[in-house]
Amino acid sequence: MARYTPPLRDIRFVMHELLDVEGTLKTLPPYAETSRELIDQVIEEGGKFCAEVLFPLNRSGDEEGCRWAEGGVVTTPKGFRQAWEQFRQAGWPTLTCDPQYGGQGLPVAVGIAFQEMMNSGSQAWAMYPGLTHGAYDCLHAHGTPEQKALYIPKLVSGEWTGTMCLTEPHSGTDLGLLRTKAEPQGDGSYRITGTKIFISSGEHDLAANIVHLVLARLPDAPAGTRGISLFIVPKFVPNADGSPGARNGVRCARLEEKMGIHANATCVMDLDGAAGWLVGEPNKGLNAMFVMMNAARIGVGMQSLGLTEVAYQNSLDYAKERLQMRSLSGAKAPDKPADPIIVHPDVRRMLLTQKAYAEGSRAFAYWTALQADIALTHPDAEARKDAEDMLALLTPVVKAFITDNGFLCTNLAMQVYGGHGYIREWGMEQYVRDARINMIYEGTNAIQALDLLGRKVLGDNGAKLRKFGKLITALVEAEGTNEEMAEFIDPLADLGQKVEKLTMEVGMKAFGNADEAGAAAVDYLRVIGHLVLGYFWARMARIALDRADSGDPVYRSKLATARFYFAKLFPETAMLIRTARAGAAPLMNVEAELF
Amino acid sequence: MARYTPPLRDIRFVMHELLDVEGTLKTLPPYAETSRELIDQVIEEGGKFCAEVLFPLNRSGDEEGCRWAEGGVVTTPKGFRQAWEQFRQAGWPTLTCDPQYGGQGLPVAVGIAFQEMMNSGSQAWAMYPGLTHGAYDCLHAHGTPEQKALYIPKLVSGEWTGTMCLTEPHSGTDLGLLRTKAEPQGDGSYRITGTKIFISSGEHDLAANIVHLVLARLPDAPAGTRGISLFIVPKFVPNADGSPGARNGVRCARLEEKMGIHANATCVMDLDGAAGWLVGEPNKGLNAMFVMMNAARIGVGMQSLGLTEVAYQNSLDYAKERLQMRSLSGAKAPDKPADPIIVHPDVRRMLLTQKAYAEGSRAFAYWTALQADIALTHPDAEARKDAEDMLALLTPVVKAFITDNGFLCTNLAMQVYGGHGYIREWGMEQYVRDARINMIYEGTNAIQALDLLGRKVLGDNGAKLRKFGKLITALVEAEGTNEEMAEFIDPLADLGQKVEKLTMEVGMKAFGNADEAGAAAVDYLRVIGHLVLGYFWARMARIALDRADSGDPVYRSKLATARFYFAKLFPETAMLIRTARAGAAPLMNVEAELF
Repeated sequence: MARYTPPLRDIRFVMHELLDVEGTLKTLPPYAETSRELIDQVIEEGGKFCAEVLFPLNRSGDEEGCRWAEGGVVTTPKGFRQAWEQFRQAGWPTLTCDPQYGGQGLPVAVGIAFQEMMNSGSQAWAMYPGLTHGAYDCLHAHGTPEQKALYIPKLVSGEWTGTMCLTEPHSGTDLGLLRTKAEPQGDGSYRITGTKIFISSGEHDLAANIVHLVLARLPDAPAGTRGISLFIVPKFVPNADGSPGARNGVRCARLEEKMGIHANATCVMDLDGAAGWLVGEPNKGLNAMFVMMNAARIGVGMQSLGLTEVAYQNSLDYAKERLQMRSLSGAKAPDKPADPIIVHPDVRRMLLTQKAYAEGSRAFAYWTALQADIALTHPDAEARKDAEDMLALLTPVVKAFITDNGFLCTNLAMQVYGGHGYIREWGMEQYVRDARINMIYEGTNAIQALDLLGRKVLGDNGAKLRKFGKLITALVEAEGTNEEMAEFIDPLADLGQKVEKLTMEVGMKAFGNADEAGAAAVDYLRVIGHLVLGYFWARMARIALDRADSGDPVYRSKLATARFYFAKLFPETAMLIRTARAGAAPLMNVEAELF
Repeated sequence: MARYTPPLRDIRFVMHELLDVEGTLKTLPPYAETSRELIDQVIEEGGKFCAEVLFPLNRSGDEEGCRWAEGGVVTTPKGFRQAWEQFRQAGWPTLTCDPQYGGQGLPVAVGIAFQEMMNSGSQAWAMYPGLTHGAYDCLHAHGTPEQKALYIPKLVSGEWTGTMCLTEPHSGTDLGLLRTKAEPQGDGSYRITGTKIFISSGEHDLAANIVHLVLARLPDAPAGTRGISLFIVPKFVPNADGSPGARNGVRCARLEEKMGIHANATCVMDLDGAAGWLVGEPNKGLNAMFVMMNAARIGVGMQSLGLTEVAYQNSLDYAKERLQMRSLSGAKAPDKPADPIIVHPDVRRMLLTQKAYAEGSRAFAYWTALQADIALTHPDAEARKDAEDMLALLTPVVKAFITDNGFLCTNLAMQVYGGHGYIREWGMEQYVRDARINMIYEGTNAIQALDLLGRKVLGDNGAKLRKFGKLITALVEAEGTNEEMAEFIDPLADLGQKVEKLTMEVGMKAFGNADEAGAAAVDYLRVIGHLVLGYFWARMARIALDRADSGDPVYRSKLATARFYFAKLFPETAMLIRTARAGAAPLMNVEAELF
């Protein structure tokens, strides 16, 4: 009953009109030939795949879920395998991979649009290639030449898939507690023994082999996070010719029953002396895994962007079709038995909130992806460093801000449907259930906030934040005397100054008591989220003002959405700054027995 | 794995220390003998029933759901019937009913505590008696003496249950569109034909008969809401002796598959010339139904209060037991492998948010219930009118504010559990799914907001609101010079003034353009919610300050929670006032095709 139309016009707006991706890529040697036409073609074809192949599987996949059978065999829902085959045949897994291993070598800034659209199609399905790409990234950065030769081409082609095996029952956020053991066998291999939980895509029937990347401890490893090493543990140990060989001792003990993403297999994995091979240096496993985790965090943001977009589209359709009550300011469709509910101000608030967060997050996330490309490939070291800093600073914001908003927005989409939103067949409640996990996994959103405030902002005395601040200052200076832009620039400039003060204040307090950072972090992250979104909405408004008379309604739409954003969403910062400043005392001056 | 402990201490705090329910009841003739001891006994026994009989059915009921079979037979989950029998045997359905019909005649202010606890036990189960009590209320207010004699004793005893049949596929919020027809048969009965959807408890195996209260149109009825009449449509037409007679033409065509409350049967009901009898006057059905709807709106608030409380209890246990990471300000449990997560500031924020909303809402809702008792039974007409006004003003706030917060809080409870929160066996995600419907049914929360701002506040030029304002003024005057109370009284007094200004401003704007009310309503309702909760938290803080040295930790706990509330939750009003004042333009100045 639901529909998905790839938002090609808005993607092109962001890529070409806002970010000039093509122009930036010309400065990056590996991508200098990536033309606007190629980008548009990839996005259009990618959108077709997501809308025509993935989207039709989303509801049925949720209903059917994955099934476990004796021996740890896991079956994905009907159609998932066929979609995987089509995905492979069309070369989609190769999109942003290294040409040396069979990849198409496109930039992350292009791949991210496909990522978004896959998640609008089906988040549960998109997690299979998502984790595979994470394993690719990790091995590409840290594998030995032999490991790369053996595993990477199979991951790039989608013949094999990948996983990240971090969590254990007693060890989630706190990986320092993990107990899985790795015993050296003297032949370069290890025997890995332990139990891993919450392993997404841990077992399934899509691919011939599964490459698990497993965190474990060597016998002599120090306690805590400095004693964790990373291992490749393939489901089938590859033969020298690359074909899957002997079945390894890693099995899915059971599937978790979850709130959502039913079509992705969330596995309890038993490792019973499984053969594993060290990736990177001993005891440096967490560093190696972080390559994967940072990309995964952006990926989780894209999951929520994808859900926000598709939920928005459907709630918009519903709001235009559903007739209920008359407009308070007089009938708008007098020929009909009632007005379409889009005439009601609060329905518009719910729709525009989704639209403003979807389009604002798209601008923000795609820009961040471009920073990833610059960080990796710009010829100038300083440009690389700047981009790397932006990426480090904003990765937790992409993850937490977009996923918090995604849950808010899918809930608003559901609310637009009224009672029908609560009924499964309309499809909206699934988006809410699926969106909910994104606030939890890959580091809960509170962990993202601590990463942002503690490590990324206070950790370098605000240096990275000031770099981002310079972008805002430049915009404010350029537009400060432009009357038309005042409604966007004034609040943005004001928030910029407040963020500076807030950061100083929290930093000073945290210097005396680290719990002050913990108490302010979640509010602080949302403030930064609005600073970033405000910046991009102001820039988009500028473009829209310039082109308002072009006849293309997209510009009037952008302008209206920017106005809505600054009037109705941006003022959340007034609350957040107060609550961030309220400090740790109201939280910490409560003895545990008084809760 | 989850647990529920009835919050008897806090219920007693609210009833006896904050509200002096016993003292107020002494002024109400029917309840003058209701002693504190009796109240405590009812609550204690009621709590036992909810914790020991209902709570164990909640998870299994969710997993199993209701089943439909050919012929429209519906089976509730295992144990639901037995619980209903125990409920009946113990006389619980009679609690607040009229002694004339077999009721125990206790006040609403006592019944509400039992209502809260039933929902902590199992919201899906509690909906069966909830709707039955609604049917009782409606017939008690509007039935003929014969109808009362025939139906009410059966509803009071729980032999029969009741429903409200309002919604149709094309007619939800807008009941004026409903099409179900009632044709007079000349013998005082009518033939009712139509389809009703979303009928909670519409069919089941708990009771011998089901009394449907159905909205329908008479042949000559005017269009819209002024042409709607109310009918009793029993599943089995009662014989003269009150035994269930012939099967009537009202059948469950199917059950809806929903996001949550799986154990409550949400039915599509086909009425195929079913025999019905008019309740109240022709074409005045909506008025009659409103008796039921207002009680139901308070009831929905209690559903979310119940869920908030039980989710809080479990997330608190988890936060005390789960070891993960060290406190940022130094290890707090150095003998353990990590600190319990309750040491982390943001975990405390999540817990205290739940606690502050649970306890604040309890105070607010129980006070509102007491207003219902006063409105119905106080000997003085002015006192009745004042209480009626408070009830009318605050019913939409109980419904919308408590259910919005309930969804927020159950989500926070889930978030405290991290990944485990997303897994069904831990029970938290069910609370989120169940809590979600409460924001939608019995009038969406946006409809509540329009009722509050449009009808209850602007409708009488703020007269009712000023009555509530007088309570705040009195508190501010009494405590204004009390230094210890300044941290609570100052922000409350400040908000009181801002509400006055905001109300004037919105009223003026709405005078020119009714969409201005629609644009501000949802924010406005939350502002009023905080005004009310701030008032009760200030009063609770006052009691806690007085008794802080008593040795009972409840007072230090109250004080800490009040401080948290004013520091971290109350500042939401800073945002809400801004967004409410932003007006209709950012919402309405967007042509539909620009969305």
